[in-house]
Amino acid sequence: MTAASSDSSVPSEYDDAARFPLDSSGEERLIGRLLSRYRSAPALLGPGDDAAMIAAPDGRFVISVDTLVEDQDFRVEWPSGVRTSGYDVGWKSAAQNLSDINAMGAIATAAVISLSLPRDTPLEWVEGVALGFSAALEQLGAGRCSIAGGDVGRSGEISITAAVTGHLSGAEPRVRSGARPHHVIAVCGHLGAAGAGLALLDQPAASGVSERPWSSDEQRCVDLQLRPEPPLREGPVAVARRASSMMDISDGLLRDAGRIARASGVVMAIDSSALTFDLDMLRDAGERLETNPLNWTLTGGEGHALLATYASLEDVPSGWHAIGEVRAGQPQVLVDNQEPSALGFDHFSGV
Amino acid sequence: MTAASSDSSVPSEYDDAARFPLDSSGEERLIGRLLSRYRSAPALLGPGDDAAMIAAPDGRFVISVDTLVEDQDFRVEWPSGVRTSGYDVGWKSAAQNLSDINAMGAIATAAVISLSLPRDTPLEWVEGVALGFSAALEQLGAGRCSIAGGDVGRSGEISITAAVTGHLSGAEPRVRSGARPHHVIAVCGHLGAAGAGLALLDQPAASGVSERPWSSDEQRCVDLQLRPEPPLREGPVAVARRASSMMDISDGLLRDAGRIARASGVVMAIDSSALTFDLDMLRDAGERLETNPLNWTLTGGEGHALLATYASLEDVPSGWHAIGEVRAGQPQVLVDNQEPSALGFDHFSGV
Repeated sequence: MTAASSDSSVPSEYDDAARFPLDSSGEERLIGRLLSRYRSAPALLGPGDDAAMIAAPDGRFVISVDTLVEDQDFRVEWPSGVRTSGYDVGWKSAAQNLSDINAMGAIATAAVISLSLPRDTPLEWVEGVALGFSAALEQLGAGRCSIAGGDVGRSGEISITAAVTGHLSGAEPRVRSGARPHHVIAVCGHLGAAGAGLALLDQPAASGVSERPWSSDEQRCVDLQLRPEPPLREGPVAVARRASSMMDISDGLLRDAGRIARASGVVMAIDSSALTFDLDMLRDAGERLETNPLNWTLTGGEGHALLATYASLEDVPSGWHAIGEVRAGQPQVLVDNQEPSALGFDHFSGV
Repeated sequence: MTAASSDSSVPSEYDDAARFPLDSSGEERLIGRLLSRYRSAPALLGPGDDAAMIAAPDGRFVISVDTLVEDQDFRVEWPSGVRTSGYDVGWKSAAQNLSDINAMGAIATAAVISLSLPRDTPLEWVEGVALGFSAALEQLGAGRCSIAGGDVGRSGEISITAAVTGHLSGAEPRVRSGARPHHVIAVCGHLGAAGAGLALLDQPAASGVSERPWSSDEQRCVDLQLRPEPPLREGPVAVARRASSMMDISDGLLRDAGRIARASGVVMAIDSSALTFDLDMLRDAGERLETNPLNWTLTGGEGHALLATYASLEDVPSGWHAIGEVRAGQPQVLVDNQEPSALGFDHFSGV
């Protein structure tokens, strides 16, 4: 008997089997059911014991951890009326964590996932997390990553934490401190779309700006907020092209470029005319929300593009965009030779 | 400017610096401040980039993840009036996660920690988490474990997730499926004290049973609930003595012995007369709460003792207690040759 089945506070629309079980034997069954939904490469020793075992062929591994919390990192229901599915949350957790591994130049080898869930979370939603996580691994190019274990527990709000490991095949990891004057600044992936998508999702459904349905470009921005598409094959490519520094853009181009500037002790000088590659996709949202789309390009987070520096333009891999140059000087970010705060955009505090 | 400093809902007893900051540059400062509180062995590449790099000298590593959530795994204030400190939560998170690595026979190499915190969490409490986690590493015998990175975010309730990795020096990991008939069942560590401590903490301060202050034994039980002491040096010892199966006792001896029984396809026959080694410590709590202390020994969780099987009594390391034998038969746990439900204890559902 699970404690849940004796508790009348559980909404009646879910039958016993679909409730989130409370006790530890119920948890074991739920983990088993969830693990059967995950699709991933096998580990040396998979789930079922106190820990899993993963290969680290060159005797080293990289590791990172990230958490998504309801109402902080996503909303179960957005002001626009869009509902975030378990699939979306699983995908986003995978994308965000794999992006950190990618940004070191590594290939993901394993993920362990801890889910904290309110008791009335529908089992279908929870299974969606597993399906979305697995789909992101496969579709983003991390098919060699094992889902090596997990933990499911009760909580007052939905929270998912994943730790992901990766291997570098003997190469040195890319860090933030290697940018040098005259190096070329380059990005790969989407810039600004996830930020525009967030702005669209946050528009109240009843407001005038939400009357027209979203265009296909606007829908694509929303999709990239809910299910980011980090360029997972490009981290190792950047290593092969001897990127001198690298990180992923989680908090916006300006803020993250500022981190490379400080870690490397350099000026990151960005040319806004080189930031047009995703602007077409942002135009409709910009018109609807009366926002200069370049604002999202410069400050929008959660897109998980790669930001790197290369010794020369010839080293920048195809599919990447050269967007500026590294200069000597007090650590700062410049856009068109000006401090960003002089450009009149919002959200520049803390850059 | 942090968003927190413009929000009047923050309790006034904490000054600006002691508030939990909201925006991402504030988070960076907080992570820096927290990392300065952690004390641990260095990693190959430490915090500061998108991922840390850890050595895996034999080309493999084990990994596990666990979460503690406020009001599920601990209470900020217990019915007894005891308050859980950040130090307690940090210690417990380390102990619980390191115990999983120990149970594989491995030595912990790295931990990554994700903290989710309500905005009114005092900075002192948050720093306590780092101090408690570090102290557990050092005092429990995991001084070679690096704190390799972390993530701090906002949430409605306190939650801490740690993923821990370990290495096996080329040995095979101990799993749950290796117990065979005639093997000896043995445990190492505390059995029942954390469960008795939980029962004491859950007694309302105003109730009659809480009138007398706790005895030193009762206080020790409470301490072992708040800050468990898994025997972290014993996992590798068990490997050296060729333990045939091993796990840590998170959910109570009977329930966890049931997991070895099912994974190995054997009967785990426990002799209650061999379970007396910690009973003295439980006696005062048993009298106060009118509970047979053996109940806590058999079913109390969160003590993180090791449960293992060995081919013979001579293989059981010193400091371990032989508590029964493995038999052929349908997977089940027996206590004094009876099914536990026949013994009249509570909490046996799901064994």
